[in-house]
Amino acid sequence: LIISILGDGGWGTAQAILLAGNQHQVTLWGAFPDYVKELNQKRLNGKFLPGVPIPKEIRITTDIKQAVSGCELLVVAVPSKFLRSVISRLKGLISEKTILLSVAKGIESRTLFRMSQVIQEETGRPSSVLSGPSHAEEVARHVPTAVVVASEDLKTARAIQSAYMCENFRVYTQMDVVGVELGGALKNVIAIASGLVDGLKLGDNTKSALIARGVMEISRLGVELGADKETFYGLSCLGDLITTCFSPHGRNQSVGRELAKGRSVKEIISGMEMVAEGVETIASALALAKRERVDLPITRMLQEVISGSVDVHEAVHLLMTRPPKPEFA
Amino acid sequence: LIISILGDGGWGTAQAILLAGNQHQVTLWGAFPDYVKELNQKRLNGKFLPGVPIPKEIRITTDIKQAVSGCELLVVAVPSKFLRSVISRLKGLISEKTILLSVAKGIESRTLFRMSQVIQEETGRPSSVLSGPSHAEEVARHVPTAVVVASEDLKTARAIQSAYMCENFRVYTQMDVVGVELGGALKNVIAIASGLVDGLKLGDNTKSALIARGVMEISRLGVELGADKETFYGLSCLGDLITTCFSPHGRNQSVGRELAKGRSVKEIISGMEMVAEGVETIASALALAKRERVDLPITRMLQEVISGSVDVHEAVHLLMTRPPKPEFA
Repeated sequence: LIISILGDGGWGTAQAILLAGNQHQVTLWGAFPDYVKELNQKRLNGKFLPGVPIPKEIRITTDIKQAVSGCELLVVAVPSKFLRSVISRLKGLISEKTILLSVAKGIESRTLFRMSQVIQEETGRPSSVLSGPSHAEEVARHVPTAVVVASEDLKTARAIQSAYMCENFRVYTQMDVVGVELGGALKNVIAIASGLVDGLKLGDNTKSALIARGVMEISRLGVELGADKETFYGLSCLGDLITTCFSPHGRNQSVGRELAKGRSVKEIISGMEMVAEGVETIASALALAKRERVDLPITRMLQEVISGSVDVHEAVHLLMTRPPKPEFA
Repeated sequence: LIISILGDGGWGTAQAILLAGNQHQVTLWGAFPDYVKELNQKRLNGKFLPGVPIPKEIRITTDIKQAVSGCELLVVAVPSKFLRSVISRLKGLISEKTILLSVAKGIESRTLFRMSQVIQEETGRPSSVLSGPSHAEEVARHVPTAVVVASEDLKTARAIQSAYMCENFRVYTQMDVVGVELGGALKNVIAIASGLVDGLKLGDNTKSALIARGVMEISRLGVELGADKETFYGLSCLGDLITTCFSPHGRNQSVGRELAKGRSVKEIISGMEMVAEGVETIASALALAKRERVDLPITRMLQEVISGSVDVHEAVHLLMTRPPKPEFA
């Protein structure tokens, strides 16, 4: 296939390497001319994917028109914050037949839209989504990885599955676009809480309980928003959350660890090169929960810690000492 | 309450400490006179829970009649292998009103019974079960922990919930005894596979995918055996599996890590002081799966690695290159 990838961060670059390895013709687009120049000269993404050579077959450009021209599969790998502005530049540039695929994770603050909804609004076309436990650093190094691709149309999902699958990258199809996208976005909130648990030097028991209860909390909201409950217990939410919580690569997790030291979110974020999507997702999740009248105790407590109204130790105490409950309400 | 705990391993001892802290009158029973003597003299369980003092209020005895006499809650914390023989000694010793609670995890090889079924067969009385991400080492040190207690009778579940709950130990009630017990037993199989992934130095992506797909595999079998699917995505299966896979305390995991070095299971087990329940559970799980006509690809592959018919690297390759599939069949 002729494939274009928008976004030269770690995930976009790893996908370019993976897809080029599957013999596709791949173009990688980046927004910043200086960085694209560096990528082309060094054939290394030193800032986001250090140490992994970028094969010479991958074309890297900052010209969006040239990047997407004639592409059969368009992969959107820009941070959720910038996704709308990048997509809005595609008008008139892509064919009716181009398959759109979002690999970005987040919820737009203003509209509370999922990324595929933003893409649909800007292009008038539905977008598939790919998600799962897939740290870019590991995918680029051919570590065995399994993800899901969700599409409203099974044929499209299968076409994407077939484009990505290889010995070290296994793709399962899904039709629950809403669930896969929400799980991928909302798990970043629980990942921040998990970093907090680490930072407080609590134990594995605490962290595992947080993850199990966290997925349940996400699924409660997701079901109200039209997703299948089961989806959240698959690769896209649960699987991804586990990697995020236990990997040294996790950005959201490291935000939590820093919070535990008593630093402010503003201070933590300003020191980071990469984007920790979870921080913005907290407010979006709570806004959605309010609209759907669902309680998200962990997310709510995290918001209170961040806003400074509850101390971190007090937050753990409050969560542990809520009234006795059945496991599934 | 007057509480007796059968089994002076790490988990039995940690529960004794927890329950004594909740002001119950606790007796701990151990099978070996020499070790019980040591426990009484040192007030330390040096072999299974090093460094944690055992409060003097806990009575420790090797006399089973004395241990269970007059108890209102009887906690069974012996390894699954020895459970039947210990329980068979209780005939005529416990009152009709005594609540029976199993915290043992495993499936009896000969009968393929869950532990509560063994207890029921031996005593004629139903047993509740308590399970979840709860490493004994952490519970004994008051690390925040959340578990479930399942009982066919909600009132009984609530009574146990109330006996255990405190600031650092949160208990959720459940009515799916079958699901809670199967999840707790079968997750040990996936934990061995996870240790293998670690030993092979694969990545976080691989391990997270294994856990997500592993829970799915367990739930497929569990549903055929009469459990609720949802139970497996709660604290008792998923939550427990996560702790087991990421904790340095994990015994089953360490079996997997040693397997990755090419050592035989027999050799590995003979060198272990504690019991790795998962090894025996593999055969039981496959026997149940055969009876119920369910496919367990991960468990099956693990069995082939252990029996020596497939090399570990080949096993990963075979799992990754199965035909393309939907996430939920």
